[in-house]
Amino acid sequence: MQNAITPFCPLYRQAIELIGRKWSGAIIRAMLAGATHFSEFSSVIPGVSDRLVSVRLKELEANGVVERIVIPDKPVRIQYRLTPKGEALGKVVVAITEWAEEWMSRDQPVSVNVTD
Amino acid sequence: MQNAITPFCPLYRQAIELIGRKWSGAIIRAMLAGATHFSEFSSVIPGVSDRLVSVRLKELEANGVVERIVIPDKPVRIQYRLTPKGEALGKVVVAITEWAEEWMSRDQPVSVNVTD
Repeated sequence: MQNAITPFCPLYRQAIELIGRKWSGAIIRAMLAGATHFSEFSSVIPGVSDRLVSVRLKELEANGVVERIVIPDKPVRIQYRLTPKGEALGKVVVAITEWAEEWMSRDQPVSVNVTD
Repeated sequence: MQNAITPFCPLYRQAIELIGRKWSGAIIRAMLAGATHFSEFSSVIPGVSDRLVSVRLKELEANGVVERIVIPDKPVRIQYRLTPKGEALGKVVVAITEWAEEWMSRDQPVSVNVTD
């Protein structure tokens, strides 16, 4: 842990809402695990549509997290790769996974009223 | 870092999309920094509406991250506090902040085409 967390940080808000959009975090994780071809995303991520994979890849590309590589074969091949900025999300994905494995599988705690 | 990241983890996806919804990450951060009263959220977080603070607090409460405490004063006072599950998000918030401070302020890298 570092020093006390400040109440607001605009870069943090931008970051968490970028990676937390529906399917974006799952796409980044699949890429960290080695997915590079468009068709891999929908085969690895249950329930995602090709349309949303495409939208999210474009958003991540526009934010410098993903790059789209055109390989001039015949026919042309397209690969998606994490940039160094995207690879650096590995630590974040691990931290969220550790939290999720510890806490998301448990029953919801019940909200309580206390007297003071 | 731990072992290799698996391509898909449903708990991770659930977690990242819970904390990454618009304003949710900012609200959790404000609470980690000590905010407990409803009015503090909109004063600390630029641009958020009271309506969305209310919606997000209810979602976080339903997921066991936040608890709503009713203090039976006259008039009754309401406080919002992180549960242990919510406090445990401190590490995630720090990891995202570190990534954001390193990468989100830089210019976007340019997407490139490579030949192989």
